[in-house]
Amino acid sequence: MSGTLYGVGLGPGDPELMTLKADRLIRSAQVVAYPALVQGDSFARAIAAATIPETAREIRIEVPMTPARAPAQIAYDAAAADIAETLEAGQDVVCLCEGDPFFYGSFMYLHARLADRFDVQVVPGVTSMTACAARAARPLVARNEVLTVIPGPLPEDELATRLAEADTAVIMKVGRHLAKIRTVIDKAGLSETARYLERATLPAERALPLAEAPDPAPYFSMILVTKGADPWL
Amino acid sequence: MSGTLYGVGLGPGDPELMTLKADRLIRSAQVVAYPALVQGDSFARAIAAATIPETAREIRIEVPMTPARAPAQIAYDAAAADIAETLEAGQDVVCLCEGDPFFYGSFMYLHARLADRFDVQVVPGVTSMTACAARAARPLVARNEVLTVIPGPLPEDELATRLAEADTAVIMKVGRHLAKIRTVIDKAGLSETARYLERATLPAERALPLAEAPDPAPYFSMILVTKGADPWL
Repeated sequence: MSGTLYGVGLGPGDPELMTLKADRLIRSAQVVAYPALVQGDSFARAIAAATIPETAREIRIEVPMTPARAPAQIAYDAAAADIAETLEAGQDVVCLCEGDPFFYGSFMYLHARLADRFDVQVVPGVTSMTACAARAARPLVARNEVLTVIPGPLPEDELATRLAEADTAVIMKVGRHLAKIRTVIDKAGLSETARYLERATLPAERALPLAEAPDPAPYFSMILVTKGADPWL
Repeated sequence: MSGTLYGVGLGPGDPELMTLKADRLIRSAQVVAYPALVQGDSFARAIAAATIPETAREIRIEVPMTPARAPAQIAYDAAAADIAETLEAGQDVVCLCEGDPFFYGSFMYLHARLADRFDVQVVPGVTSMTACAARAARPLVARNEVLTVIPGPLPEDELATRLAEADTAVIMKVGRHLAKIRTVIDKAGLSETARYLERATLPAERALPLAEAPDPAPYFSMILVTKGADPWL
């Protein structure tokens, strides 16, 4: 009988924001898999480091961060093949995922390659989005407000359109797109309500008014524009 | 010295989807507070039931579910006064919140009333949104896709506009609005990709094609329209 592949959300970075279920599955894992930079760190592994058994076999999925898709596709194909072989041998595999596996998570690339042939279970995690709201002390949405989650790499005109439509907007993946995003928010007259956060819930966390955000921002950064959220009932 | 008010996200319903931090804070709580139906159940308390110390004092916040805001405002005013007195006496209060406190969570009404005078810490939780995606095995958003979270009580024309703008849409608070929402999704030609979920991660969970959803739906129900999500890299 084949093993089960678990895609386990680890939350935004603070290991204490892992769920009890994630903690249990990782502690009993015989095989863990996780994405990592080529010859570099794995943020997912770092979150779960104290929880991974010393005896567990580790499958590092080194993902080239290139504009072209092919190198990453090759990496996921190879990882899926490795994981498939493990599952076929009857072992479970616990895949460690920053945040939530299905919210801009790379686990979906393994899911697409393996869910038709194997039992795949997804364990949701705390997203960086609500973690940032908590750390910024900014309610995201109340009652009948609409929340729009916008990736920062989108072109400037599309960012502007999306922001204009939104009640509350969360702009993800800020990084080197900070200057462009700041221009869009300034033009919309929303700079006063915008809040910049990086590495939320980690010791290196910073929460700043947008005007003080560093440019370029680190990859794990986000901007909250809570023009809609009215926390008063 | 005054106590701290913790707004603790409990996740979507499965107690194992509480975070380690929520578990720790609740286990050591002297005072817990939670919203409840008038003379009825508290979903938040039910999620954390096995974790609440027997010795803890419990502040039930009975919230009238009426279209008028005033009755609920009075309930939150009274709860805030009770909690303020406890904090002033130097005790911490752990407020139990379904899902995430700042994602359509009623904790923000306490936050608005108390955060200017007391230390208030928000602990993010797993949202029902990503829990539903996990249970439906449907990735929400990848790469540069935009996610729009739409409350089901909005008028039909606004629902239609929001849905047309979205890559992936999550429609919350379906309940008695199901027929209206289904009409909007049908007219948009998106019924095939829409997935209905209720009570995700609970034993009574159901995941159905939209056409088979019960009308009226229970309050804890949601529709995922993942027209945008492309899980292939």
